[in-house]
Amino acid sequence: MLLEAIFHQPKRNWAYAYDQDTIRLRLRAKKNDLTEVYALTGDKYAWEETRDMVPLTKLTSDSMFDYYEGEVRPPYHRLKYAFLLKSGDEHIWMTETDFQEEEPDDPGRMFQFPYLHAGAVFTPPAWVKDAVFYQIFPERFANGNPDINPKEVEPWGGEPTPFNFFGGDLQGVIDHLDYLSELGINAIYFTPIFEATTNHKYDTEDYLRVDRHFGDADTVKHLVKLCHERGIRVLLDAVFNHSGKTFAPFVDVQKLGAKSKYKDWFHVHEFPLDVKDGIPTYETFGFEPHMPKLNTENPEVKAYLLEVAEYWIKEVGTDGWRLDVADEVDDAFWRDFRRVVKEANPDAYILGEIWNESSSWLQGDQFDAAMNYPFTAAVNHFFVEDKMHAAEFASALGRQLSRYPLQANEVAFNLLDSHDTPRLLTLCEGDQRKMKLAALFQFSYMGAPCIYYGDEIGLDGEHDPGCRKCMEWDEAKQDRELLHFYQKLIALRHAHPALRAAGTIRFLQAQEGGSQLVMERQSDEERILILFNRSEETAIVELDAGEQPWTELFEGNHRTALEDGVLAIELPAYGYAVMRTEVK
Amino acid sequence: MLLEAIFHQPKRNWAYAYDQDTIRLRLRAKKNDLTEVYALTGDKYAWEETRDMVPLTKLTSDSMFDYYEGEVRPPYHRLKYAFLLKSGDEHIWMTETDFQEEEPDDPGRMFQFPYLHAGAVFTPPAWVKDAVFYQIFPERFANGNPDINPKEVEPWGGEPTPFNFFGGDLQGVIDHLDYLSELGINAIYFTPIFEATTNHKYDTEDYLRVDRHFGDADTVKHLVKLCHERGIRVLLDAVFNHSGKTFAPFVDVQKLGAKSKYKDWFHVHEFPLDVKDGIPTYETFGFEPHMPKLNTENPEVKAYLLEVAEYWIKEVGTDGWRLDVADEVDDAFWRDFRRVVKEANPDAYILGEIWNESSSWLQGDQFDAAMNYPFTAAVNHFFVEDKMHAAEFASALGRQLSRYPLQANEVAFNLLDSHDTPRLLTLCEGDQRKMKLAALFQFSYMGAPCIYYGDEIGLDGEHDPGCRKCMEWDEAKQDRELLHFYQKLIALRHAHPALRAAGTIRFLQAQEGGSQLVMERQSDEERILILFNRSEETAIVELDAGEQPWTELFEGNHRTALEDGVLAIELPAYGYAVMRTEVK
Repeated sequence: MLLEAIFHQPKRNWAYAYDQDTIRLRLRAKKNDLTEVYALTGDKYAWEETRDMVPLTKLTSDSMFDYYEGEVRPPYHRLKYAFLLKSGDEHIWMTETDFQEEEPDDPGRMFQFPYLHAGAVFTPPAWVKDAVFYQIFPERFANGNPDINPKEVEPWGGEPTPFNFFGGDLQGVIDHLDYLSELGINAIYFTPIFEATTNHKYDTEDYLRVDRHFGDADTVKHLVKLCHERGIRVLLDAVFNHSGKTFAPFVDVQKLGAKSKYKDWFHVHEFPLDVKDGIPTYETFGFEPHMPKLNTENPEVKAYLLEVAEYWIKEVGTDGWRLDVADEVDDAFWRDFRRVVKEANPDAYILGEIWNESSSWLQGDQFDAAMNYPFTAAVNHFFVEDKMHAAEFASALGRQLSRYPLQANEVAFNLLDSHDTPRLLTLCEGDQRKMKLAALFQFSYMGAPCIYYGDEIGLDGEHDPGCRKCMEWDEAKQDRELLHFYQKLIALRHAHPALRAAGTIRFLQAQEGGSQLVMERQSDEERILILFNRSEETAIVELDAGEQPWTELFEGNHRTALEDGVLAIELPAYGYAVMRTEVK
Repeated sequence: MLLEAIFHQPKRNWAYAYDQDTIRLRLRAKKNDLTEVYALTGDKYAWEETRDMVPLTKLTSDSMFDYYEGEVRPPYHRLKYAFLLKSGDEHIWMTETDFQEEEPDDPGRMFQFPYLHAGAVFTPPAWVKDAVFYQIFPERFANGNPDINPKEVEPWGGEPTPFNFFGGDLQGVIDHLDYLSELGINAIYFTPIFEATTNHKYDTEDYLRVDRHFGDADTVKHLVKLCHERGIRVLLDAVFNHSGKTFAPFVDVQKLGAKSKYKDWFHVHEFPLDVKDGIPTYETFGFEPHMPKLNTENPEVKAYLLEVAEYWIKEVGTDGWRLDVADEVDDAFWRDFRRVVKEANPDAYILGEIWNESSSWLQGDQFDAAMNYPFTAAVNHFFVEDKMHAAEFASALGRQLSRYPLQANEVAFNLLDSHDTPRLLTLCEGDQRKMKLAALFQFSYMGAPCIYYGDEIGLDGEHDPGCRKCMEWDEAKQDRELLHFYQKLIALRHAHPALRAAGTIRFLQAQEGGSQLVMERQSDEERILILFNRSEETAIVELDAGEQPWTELFEGNHRTALEDGVLAIELPAYGYAVMRTEVK
């Protein structure tokens, strides 16, 4: 046993409350090193009466480690525990203080989860487990009300630049709700809609007013009402890390300098405000002078922004917030933000924009999820860019799963592209076969998939501004076959709980150097295999057929044969298959 | 290189702000595996301009791992980083996503400390770095006002039982402040002083009233004022996990059951309150029916207790709180507690009673320190009980240091016994030689030492109630030699910053199976060696004498010789020495 590889520590993803009665314990070990793992558990004040051995099973793996997890239900909400690790005939016990040969008998030296507090359980909103998101960049989705077009509006469908406008607005979204319902999505994430000067609106001028070119509060209210009637949830974008340069308090500081009563709303190093050698004399997003960083540690700023957060949820009934540049805002702010938002709507989804490992925000006191860009990267590397082989891909996903508590993985926000990346089809260099494999994976994995508007009808585009093209509404110019594929994908996901939070995840085939991948999703009712052949060669995948008959769930371009208990599936180049069997 | 042993993750003790401009990065590796460690650092928005390589040096070690640490001062408060690990000719880079041979060039795949927020820096009160605590159990320290004796008072010095009273009070402490000043301590931690029925007062009846047998608010106010005049800080004990059975809201619930307006102040599973087969129908401390657990997630309870926390600090000017059973109270409560307490007194010390690894409470949002019982256990195991050899002892301490950010270690609360353990002298089975070694270690290590009242004059006693004997004030019955030893220890610590937070810690000798220990504490000005011989055999320790002359700091019972650059120190059985040299 490689003891140096064993890792466990209380809290975070290693020992966490899953619900009011359940604590999940996770332990890391060198890959393929252990054969059995148990937790010795009990209440420290009644050790003998409550002592129990709980098995941990393999939750996931990456290239170096296996991660084991098990559930404990401490009768008095207090838990002391140690681990028993077995590797064939060898065994060792792990306590908080050491590894030892003998079974530990002193709870004092064990790990602890001192008390399971009901109010501290990380409980993301359940609806997100079943959500399929659609991301809309309002200026480019549809122009429903030309009366509020910006003066400098250009004809719909022109070449996007960082600066131009095409007149998209909220009425445009209202006009196309049927389209979204037919597509099958049940949640929309809107990039910012508040008054701002740019086309992307990430430079807020007025947090309490809808951008005049998008509509007004009534338009949003109407939009949200119509969405809710269709079972579509609505997420708005909160840009609280920084404001725009036309935000009134910042205008005041620009004008009055150190005499402004708003001078502490920002982080000013030197008055008057200036930019020297490209570096502003005040803190900003990046080094962007037009996006002054808000001082969210200032109680006035905090109170103002929390009022904004509460206002839109209460005023128009939105279902949560996506938080821009979330990791550069202080934890104390987000903790109060969560309190305010969840009081206004206990079912609100709080989604942070964090590109990195995000576990410290996913402990129940801050966010429900982070935009899962590590997922995005892995899917692109394997299915699209051929930078990873199957084992590396499975490892990257396994590592990502290992980092968060289960409830965070269940509501992860799994995107393949966004307004901040090149479009998926462009990453695929136009090869829809790759795009379809990537999307099938996205829709059969744990976490809420999100489609960036237009991907489903073949919109392409390089990194910003290219990825912010106008939506194509001329059906003759839409890729209707691709749209149909996405509709089927969404329907598949909605029809099968095992593809959502109810299903465990296991990679049955993901070899070193391999291009084939077989993922198993299994719930109490069904077992679904999703097969991918990411190569130009035909591949034959052989699987143990088991006892139950198999059904094909998703029309693929493959052939199957069953003989002597072996299910053989022939996948053509970039072929896929989805097979289901019942669990009895 | 054993990659499975390498560990780093953002936040906690691994990447943390030390002050408003400094981030410390820590990395774990297999013991004696690496020869050099560097962090490649920069600002993600100005990578090339800010790119820097920062060396990490060995901070501490345990039996399996080395822990490296280094400091970064990111110019724009944002930090992206990767590590370069070297082992002889081998090298490898570590990013957030993987290990790799080539130098990483994409900050996106590196670790991050997204933004250093001034208000989020964990800043324990500086005075604790120089504090020497004295723990007083008021009922047993001194009877200064017989008028307020409990009715059932027994003669001073009798045998303590769980139930009897001897009349100790706050006037008694006031009467002996000269004694404490002569001893040299500069901080007192009082076990609870609020109205309660027991002799230990951990069953609070009234949080806003001083126990009638101890005095009143004016007595405390006077006591604190006198202490402050002498430079002595005062810490009170907050028992917020549970109340006593005579606490008015609990009395009300006992009487009115589900109709009581206080029914949600506790965790009641079943009315009327009852105890069935030894298990109360409501949650308690342990299974103690007389100590009902408070529902600190109930906003009313929270508001009440926070008012209490603020009241005593503001009313009598105390210097912080020790928190009873701190780990069984919810994090959200303690976060608000910290806010309220630090607003009332920014210099307040918040000390949690946690017997286990406590890192999740020591991140700047909850406590400044936890009672360092892992330290207690290690010192007892090595110096007192002979359950550990020197290498194991150094390993246990190294592991403990590795768990917390540096600023937490600087203000650790290092105790060798308390009202909840047998007394040190009793653990030593009366062998003062062992006791002195343990105490010398305690006073030369990082973190604030605490003396449990009476240890310094030879008080002994088994676990509660034995350890709660009356203080001995008859000088003829005091061990004056031991007292003198403690006075010298305290003076030694006060005189030498290197023994406090200013000094790094290194074990120059701590061998497998060994009984000798040499600890080095080094500051910018001085280097101090503390030598211990925990055995019945005479030991000769040889050390590189270096360039500077050595001074003996503490009268020991050893002999030294200097020859050919080697300093030889002969330590008799249970001998010790403290040697100092200047650093030029």
